[in-house]
Amino acid sequence: MHVGFVGLGNMGRGMASNLLQAGHQVTVFNRSAGKSEILVGQGATLAGNLAEACRGDAVITMVADDGALENVVFSKDGILASLPKGAIHISSSTISVALSRRLTESHAGAGQRFVAAPVFGRPNAAAARQLYIAAAGPEQAVREAMPLLEAMSQRTYVLSDAPWQANLVKLSGNFLIASVIESLGEALALVAKAGVDRKQYVELLTSSLFNAPVYKVYGALLADDAPAPVGFSAPLGLKDIKLALAAGEELRVPMPLASLLRDRFLSLLAQQGEELDWSAIGKLAMRDAGRI
Amino acid sequence: MHVGFVGLGNMGRGMASNLLQAGHQVTVFNRSAGKSEILVGQGATLAGNLAEACRGDAVITMVADDGALENVVFSKDGILASLPKGAIHISSSTISVALSRRLTESHAGAGQRFVAAPVFGRPNAAAARQLYIAAAGPEQAVREAMPLLEAMSQRTYVLSDAPWQANLVKLSGNFLIASVIESLGEALALVAKAGVDRKQYVELLTSSLFNAPVYKVYGALLADDAPAPVGFSAPLGLKDIKLALAAGEELRVPMPLASLLRDRFLSLLAQQGEELDWSAIGKLAMRDAGRI
Amino acid sequence: MHVGFVGLGNMGRGMASNLLQAGHQVTVFNRSAGKSEILVGQGATLAGNLAEACRGDAVITMVADDGALENVVFSKDGILASLPKGAIHISSSTISVALSRRLTESHAGAGQRFVAAPVFGRPNAAAARQLYIAAAGPEQAVREAMPLLEAMSQRTYVLSDAPWQANLVKLSGNFLIASVIESLGEALALVAKAGVDRKQYVELLTSSLFNAPVYKVYGALLADDAPAPVGFSAPLGLKDIKLALAAGEELRVPMPLASLLRDRFLSLLAQQGEELDWSAIGKLAMRDAGRI
Amino acid sequence: MHVGFVGLGNMGRGMASNLLQAGHQVTVFNRSAGKSEILVGQGATLAGNLAEACRGDAVITMVADDGALENVVFSKDGILASLPKGAIHISSSTISVALSRRLTESHAGAGQRFVAAPVFGRPNAAAARQLYIAAAGPEQAVREAMPLLEAMSQRTYVLSDAPWQANLVKLSGNFLIASVIESLGEALALVAKAGVDRKQYVELLTSSLFNAPVYKVYGALLADDAPAPVGFSAPLGLKDIKLALAAGEELRVPMPLASLLRDRFLSLLAQQGEELDWSAIGKLAMRDAGRI
Repeated sequence: MHVGFVGLGNMGRGMASNLLQAGHQVTVFNRSAGKSEILVGQGATLAGNLAEACRGDAVITMVADDGALENVVFSKDGILASLPKGAIHISSSTISVALSRRLTESHAGAGQRFVAAPVFGRPNAAAARQLYIAAAGPEQAVREAMPLLEAMSQRTYVLSDAPWQANLVKLSGNFLIASVIESLGEALALVAKAGVDRKQYVELLTSSLFNAPVYKVYGALLADDAPAPVGFSAPLGLKDIKLALAAGEELRVPMPLASLLRDRFLSLLAQQGEELDWSAIGKLAMRDAGRI
Repeated sequence: MHVGFVGLGNMGRGMASNLLQAGHQVTVFNRSAGKSEILVGQGATLAGNLAEACRGDAVITMVADDGALENVVFSKDGILASLPKGAIHISSSTISVALSRRLTESHAGAGQRFVAAPVFGRPNAAAARQLYIAAAGPEQAVREAMPLLEAMSQRTYVLSDAPWQANLVKLSGNFLIASVIESLGEALALVAKAGVDRKQYVELLTSSLFNAPVYKVYGALLADDAPAPVGFSAPLGLKDIKLALAAGEELRVPMPLASLLRDRFLSLLAQQGEELDWSAIGKLAMRDAGRI
Repeated sequence: MHVGFVGLGNMGRGMASNLLQAGHQVTVFNRSAGKSEILVGQGATLAGNLAEACRGDAVITMVADDGALENVVFSKDGILASLPKGAIHISSSTISVALSRRLTESHAGAGQRFVAAPVFGRPNAAAARQLYIAAAGPEQAVREAMPLLEAMSQRTYVLSDAPWQANLVKLSGNFLIASVIESLGEALALVAKAGVDRKQYVELLTSSLFNAPVYKVYGALLADDAPAPVGFSAPLGLKDIKLALAAGEELRVPMPLASLLRDRFLSLLAQQGEELDWSAIGKLAMRDAGRI
Repeated sequence: MHVGFVGLGNMGRGMASNLLQAGHQVTVFNRSAGKSEILVGQGATLAGNLAEACRGDAVITMVADDGALENVVFSKDGILASLPKGAIHISSSTISVALSRRLTESHAGAGQRFVAAPVFGRPNAAAARQLYIAAAGPEQAVREAMPLLEAMSQRTYVLSDAPWQANLVKLSGNFLIASVIESLGEALALVAKAGVDRKQYVELLTSSLFNAPVYKVYGALLADDAPAPVGFSAPLGLKDIKLALAAGEELRVPMPLASLLRDRFLSLLAQQGEELDWSAIGKLAMRDAGRI
């Protein structure tokens, strides 16, 4: 298929690369230059502006947050203004339920189609085509988008015809991962202050009951004294917990564990700055225990 | 080996059965009668009192809590009084760090040996020899106990020569499982009140990032409207979170998520009584959201 | 002085009445009709539209939330469009820090002046001129507004020349009051389930260490089985806690007790609807304890 | 009356002094010597051992915790062994509900009488006879003890004939005070990081809605950068919150704010040691906000 790809950050580059490897014709665009060279080397076309990335069957967006997506969609000469009637906007960013609803309406009003396809996985998973995708949107649009989604993921789940539900599921998933980080952090603080070896402990957990990627990834990061490389930044983690809480607020669903996570992120950012991997909240329990 | 087995509850019966199937000679004892019939049919000897279960190379205890274990160990004609010098008491119950230390000292004082070998897994895992065991104790004693531990588990991890560290690890493990239950409960309340199908949601989670037994077991229980059968009771869940908090208190490790879990258990027991599986705390989020 | 008064709810009516009693000439306006009769009987002039309320030296606004204030200020023919150059907008509503900053800029841009003067106290305090006011704004503007502020309060505190600081202080004050409600609710649940008489308990507290109006008012409401009349509604309470949390978020100040209060309000609204006094969150502890 | 006084710490010295000033004949005892000199100068008799402090109509105990009280009561030659039949043990220490019940039974079994009379107030209030006392016990015993209680307090409230209820009320009172500290700490962190002057803020609060001693005392301590002198130590604060939580656990009353306070105390002790006034938990919010 002919597809535009907007947003060439840590995640987007891997996803676009997989599209190319699956044989799709990809036109890439990024606001800050210089991130597209490798992709161009792999066969991508470089767009000079947003409109040039909107001339195919679909355009995929993978940007940092609501504000960035509003910018590329609603600005003059943005996606809404440029995408042909009938073409599909596939949004893979982690965004609010509110923005997802607004995009659904705006694209429908412009005769375009909107599919939400948020992804689960960190940058290395994106590069290795190991992402999971939760997709939602009008049945026919999802079906047409499927070759693209499959090219970027190890598996794509189709949830419903309401795009915002996929975005909510994505937010709930990040909440679940952050819960794993917090619980591991508290458990590690407890056993480590008692003298148990952290690495052996994580090995025990992750080869038995907690034999899942998420425990292995974050267990290894938390058992290590070195700061984790920034795969998913703490401010973005805070953003997602806030969006989950906001959705819960609208739906009248109290989430005390999500509230705890929000406070953890705020403590982290207040004390250690904004340039950290989100897993760093898992080290606050040790810090609170007096072991900085 | 000749081994006594004390405590034939949901867990103990499966563990003793596996000892028999591995060819050990097992003498079983339970305070309330009538739980030993099947085991006797499998070749176990029925002890008329505690002392009779203490005549082998080792005695394994699997009882509900500190009080129950203190009872079988420290009572007149209990294990401490009855076990031969040099024999091993293998404690598989989930008990406090404080009691583990006391047992270590008391058995040493009586010339006996003490190994802590708490288990991870629910009754069906016990029956199917799918438990994980975290063992700690003097090196030689652990080595001698290993054939018994291996007969009862799919894998046994040896942690250290301080028995209480295994008990702390067990408590931390139950804390991690309860954290999974709470986080799943909040996530399910959020997406379910939004209209997402709970079972499909759990399937998506557990076939992707959260592809681990603990998410599958508790996801299935929480996605179901029916009350879960009591595999591990809520009062015992509360007990374990309290013991983890108590250990954290002594070690000066604040654990806010554990505090949240403790409050959840109290709410559950206050509102719905004591006869519930501990997974029921995961349904409180839905209840708080007005969907009882 | 000639002053307009916009917003004749439970609070505004009492405040406007005190302005009249102090001899000011007051033109009142409310979007929904029929709330002004008593005030007109006391000598107020009834404005047919917002612009008519903006012809004096100052206009005071006392409305429910950010949205309502944005409406009366920024709409066509609203306060921003109608207020003469040099006149003062005195905002007594409880609003966000963000809106306060925006109003400061907008009014300055229009040659008008802006003073934030949020109030502490419930409707009966407003009627009895027992409110406290925290005022902030340009020094000269605050000085000119003082006769109006003094007519509506038992005491007015001048904080700084940055209006938003007064709004933040107001939000922090509502957070403190909600904290009192929550703490009293938990303490009452504890002693009441133990058999202590709630009213005697509240009397003991409030005639000794907690001899302050806020404990007396909320202690009496919580010791009573009957639902409290709606003096300050639960959805407005939730709004203020959210605004305090939002300010904390921007400033990177984690507030775990505020997070707890937010969850309490959500639980209350989810379970019992939106038509309650905010003190009802103080009865959730009893409900959690199984005593509905 | 002839009365013994056991426990001459910061609180006990002031209380005993007031008994002397009211004309009672007081025999004082303290385990560590050298704290009684001033009292002896005021007319007190110094007891060489516990038994000598038990020869009057009553003995008052004011010690640090359950362990200390168990020691002076249940040890050989302790109060239980020494107090004459019919004499009254008045316990003013802050102790657990469980110990209060045990004391009630033990003294009754020895033909003695037990009155719980815990006090509210810090050492300077004790010295100035500004304490409040919550008393509970058999009606006749409380009546006989009243001259002593009145000599030590500005007011004594009689709660019920079950001593443990007074102890529970005392624990709930300390929970309420700690809640004030936490809420003030969070509010101060919020406004101070925004640039509001902390002392002016506290003055505004405590001269208006929060015009109560508890807000004045702790507001002043928290608005000051200097560490507070130890009036009531942080480990004792933790002890009382734990006892309130333990009572809540037994009664099945979840208290999430008390759980938060417990975690605050643990963080404080883990990070800053055990030699602090309990008000120091109110400075953790500022610390979490990155302003140590």
